[in-house]
Amino acid sequence: MGKNFCTRAENYSQWYNDIVKQADLAENSSVRGCMVIKPYGYAIWEKLQSTLDKMFKDTGHVNAYFPIFIPKSFFSREASHVEGFAKECAVVTHYRLKNNPNGGGVIVDPDAKLEEELIVRPTSETIIWDTYKNWIQSYRDLPVLCNQWANVVRWEMRTRLFLRTAEFLWQEGHTAHATREEAVEETERMLHVYADFVENFMAIPVVKGVKSPNERFGGALDTYCIEALMQDGKALQAGTSHFLGQNFAKAFDVKYLDKENKPQYVWATSWGVSTRLIGALIMTHSDDNGLVLPPNLAPIQVVIVPIYKSEEQRQAIADKVQPLMQKLKEANITVKFDNDDTKRSGWKFNEYELKGVPVRIAIGPRDLETNEAEVARRDTLTKETIPFDNLVGHIQQLLKEIQQNLFEKALKFQKDNTHKADTWEEFVDLLDNHPGFVYAHWDGTPETEDKIKELSKATIRCIPFNNPLEEGKCILTGKPSKQRVLFARAY
Amino acid sequence: MGKNFCTRAENYSQWYNDIVKQADLAENSSVRGCMVIKPYGYAIWEKLQSTLDKMFKDTGHVNAYFPIFIPKSFFSREASHVEGFAKECAVVTHYRLKNNPNGGGVIVDPDAKLEEELIVRPTSETIIWDTYKNWIQSYRDLPVLCNQWANVVRWEMRTRLFLRTAEFLWQEGHTAHATREEAVEETERMLHVYADFVENFMAIPVVKGVKSPNERFGGALDTYCIEALMQDGKALQAGTSHFLGQNFAKAFDVKYLDKENKPQYVWATSWGVSTRLIGALIMTHSDDNGLVLPPNLAPIQVVIVPIYKSEEQRQAIADKVQPLMQKLKEANITVKFDNDDTKRSGWKFNEYELKGVPVRIAIGPRDLETNEAEVARRDTLTKETIPFDNLVGHIQQLLKEIQQNLFEKALKFQKDNTHKADTWEEFVDLLDNHPGFVYAHWDGTPETEDKIKELSKATIRCIPFNNPLEEGKCILTGKPSKQRVLFARAY
Repeated sequence: MGKNFCTRAENYSQWYNDIVKQADLAENSSVRGCMVIKPYGYAIWEKLQSTLDKMFKDTGHVNAYFPIFIPKSFFSREASHVEGFAKECAVVTHYRLKNNPNGGGVIVDPDAKLEEELIVRPTSETIIWDTYKNWIQSYRDLPVLCNQWANVVRWEMRTRLFLRTAEFLWQEGHTAHATREEAVEETERMLHVYADFVENFMAIPVVKGVKSPNERFGGALDTYCIEALMQDGKALQAGTSHFLGQNFAKAFDVKYLDKENKPQYVWATSWGVSTRLIGALIMTHSDDNGLVLPPNLAPIQVVIVPIYKSEEQRQAIADKVQPLMQKLKEANITVKFDNDDTKRSGWKFNEYELKGVPVRIAIGPRDLETNEAEVARRDTLTKETIPFDNLVGHIQQLLKEIQQNLFEKALKFQKDNTHKADTWEEFVDLLDNHPGFVYAHWDGTPETEDKIKELSKATIRCIPFNNPLEEGKCILTGKPSKQRVLFARAY
Repeated sequence: MGKNFCTRAENYSQWYNDIVKQADLAENSSVRGCMVIKPYGYAIWEKLQSTLDKMFKDTGHVNAYFPIFIPKSFFSREASHVEGFAKECAVVTHYRLKNNPNGGGVIVDPDAKLEEELIVRPTSETIIWDTYKNWIQSYRDLPVLCNQWANVVRWEMRTRLFLRTAEFLWQEGHTAHATREEAVEETERMLHVYADFVENFMAIPVVKGVKSPNERFGGALDTYCIEALMQDGKALQAGTSHFLGQNFAKAFDVKYLDKENKPQYVWATSWGVSTRLIGALIMTHSDDNGLVLPPNLAPIQVVIVPIYKSEEQRQAIADKVQPLMQKLKEANITVKFDNDDTKRSGWKFNEYELKGVPVRIAIGPRDLETNEAEVARRDTLTKETIPFDNLVGHIQQLLKEIQQNLFEKALKFQKDNTHKADTWEEFVDLLDNHPGFVYAHWDGTPETEDKIKELSKATIRCIPFNNPLEEGKCILTGKPSKQRVLFARAY
């Protein structure tokens, strides 16, 4: 095959790294744990971002921008929040460099020490609620429905491109409401927006549910999440939406006067997805030939490769392709005609396969004679010959089909790799030998959850919404349980 | 008038701050020098961003993302670059907080000190050229045409919302070329893109030119700029494009093999505009009634305010307005119908005037009878009555007219406030009593430029492109000069 990378079977983790690198998505930088998102990877992020941004706006949200720095003291105000983030913070302590008096470069100027250290935001609840304090006085000021697209920093010790990096890009919604009900409704609404996006645009099936207390966001009363299953049987949390109760309102003293003119604490939510989604995208659809992209998020949906021997043939194909390009663009299809004479067509076939372009059209001299073209699908790696004049309609249909097929394939994979375990032995056997989602009974205590994690490396991914009630016994302790919860080893 | 803010004549600086605050554009945060960009201000930034982004892509550029942190040692590699930025850097020295053993909050964990300090990027040349080293091997890899939308930090001591903040949002283009000519061409191309955008979208006339050596970007061989004139007669640098020569290629050892297989250092450019443009927008067009926005960048282009006494009237107006809204949207006009019953129409008139909405339509019961509407322009504060059925066409035309009028008004202001000075006395008199652009002779030395700045607080804004040659004598030293250069006091 001439591929320079591992198969999934050989080494799944290496396969992932190879795809990220060879499809030109991202690379490690000289700064520990920070990635460079390369143009092709960033183009996927831009598609993802513009689609989500529209969904946020359609549900009444507006964008704003809050400072990257957070005064250290703000963190301490919400106890479980600081607990959640203190161990992985980048801390700014000085604001000036100066020439090294001993020569050779610059040093931090000891005279330019900050009175209070600043944290590079790992998430923005504290700085935003400090701001909301001034925005909210009356019930008329509510709800506040802000979203922010930003970079955040969490000093992770073990990093992997897209999946876990010290700096990453994300969006964080932060909303303020008059009542608990409205805030809960918002938390749920945004989880459904995420699920809709991840399933319908990214073609990744998810399980929606609520986190166990152990896995909650620091400062949340409830964390809702969507969980996806990767091809190695590990789960990946693809998005979270938090009901924060009045915790941040109390920590930052944010009250409003209700209609009876009584002061009330404000109710809060926050929700986010990040560049991690690109990791999920890669690991859900790609194969041993490289990246596979769903048409809805592909920066290039169709590539046209000419096959020629003479300059005359090359020109004849270019002339034939021009009106087709025009029509495809009019149909809102992103198309690239790769007419580069310094690369061979075989190299191009490989390159676009590696980069996951959903549809490839090849046109050679014989096709000109028969007025046809060869159309190849990236998802199934199949080809067919299509009359040239039917191409636009055919491709429109095909892109929909590919989008659908990728989702169904991933859904089938998820179903095939979701099991039930009734005993500890079954549970561990499944995790070791048939990794995937495992539904099992748990006695509901954080202690048991911790112990299960310690012994099996599996965590409770969520308690699914509308989870059927079923009497049973905890796989670890044998204590009674009223429902199975969703376990997996996870990224 | 019921306005809560200063006029320009009373206190220009306060007038600016009042508009930023009262039009809900931005505010200071709890973090020294960092601003919160509020939803209305951010909506302007989004319009600006999407328009510019398209212009960058149309000129062949792609977006990417590079780390926010830069290892301290990277700065020292390019001598004039570190000189330019070392004094205003936010420095990360630690990566963890821990509970204060003495109780009360968290402290920086002294055991989590970084081996090498990281700088929060003030600009990204160094980290990007460190990355380009791996991307560029052969002439076939060139040009590299990347842009990044990002936040940057420069620890300014005196900050003003949008104009000068410790953190700001911007885009920075960083390109790599095989030849000096191509790099110079790119530097010029991007300056023209900026000028086109600032003049045609922001309706701000600019002077294009080249900076004197004193005012160059640290590490550049040439800095091109566009300079705009604010209503108080001070200049504002609205965008810069730098020809970096081979300085960064040499600092980071970035070479390519040319067609003869010889190693050559790569040529570089960088170029950027920032949220500062919003400051320029405010100060160019706004008046004593509040913000004035050019239609091309207005988040709301048209607001419709119903005037009614009874619920029945309110409903009748709403019914009448619905199809109009639809047609305006179809014509790609952003329209808001403010039907809020808790606010009076007078309050709404004031509010949208303050927020600079270009066109206001008012409809009352009498208008329903006569099938007309009152259309008010924000730029001229004039009103006229228009037959309801002509509204869409009228407004399309009107928005163009307002855009054009704002530009012409600003251009007239710029011309009226551009003078020539032939002596030092004239020069100082103009700056003090008729502030604006001043064309004057300068002997071409950095020493004289420094002295002029020290004595008059005016700087050379640029040496305009196609500047006419003219024999003369330096206003300060009397030494011979071959051309006038553009002076002003500046933001």
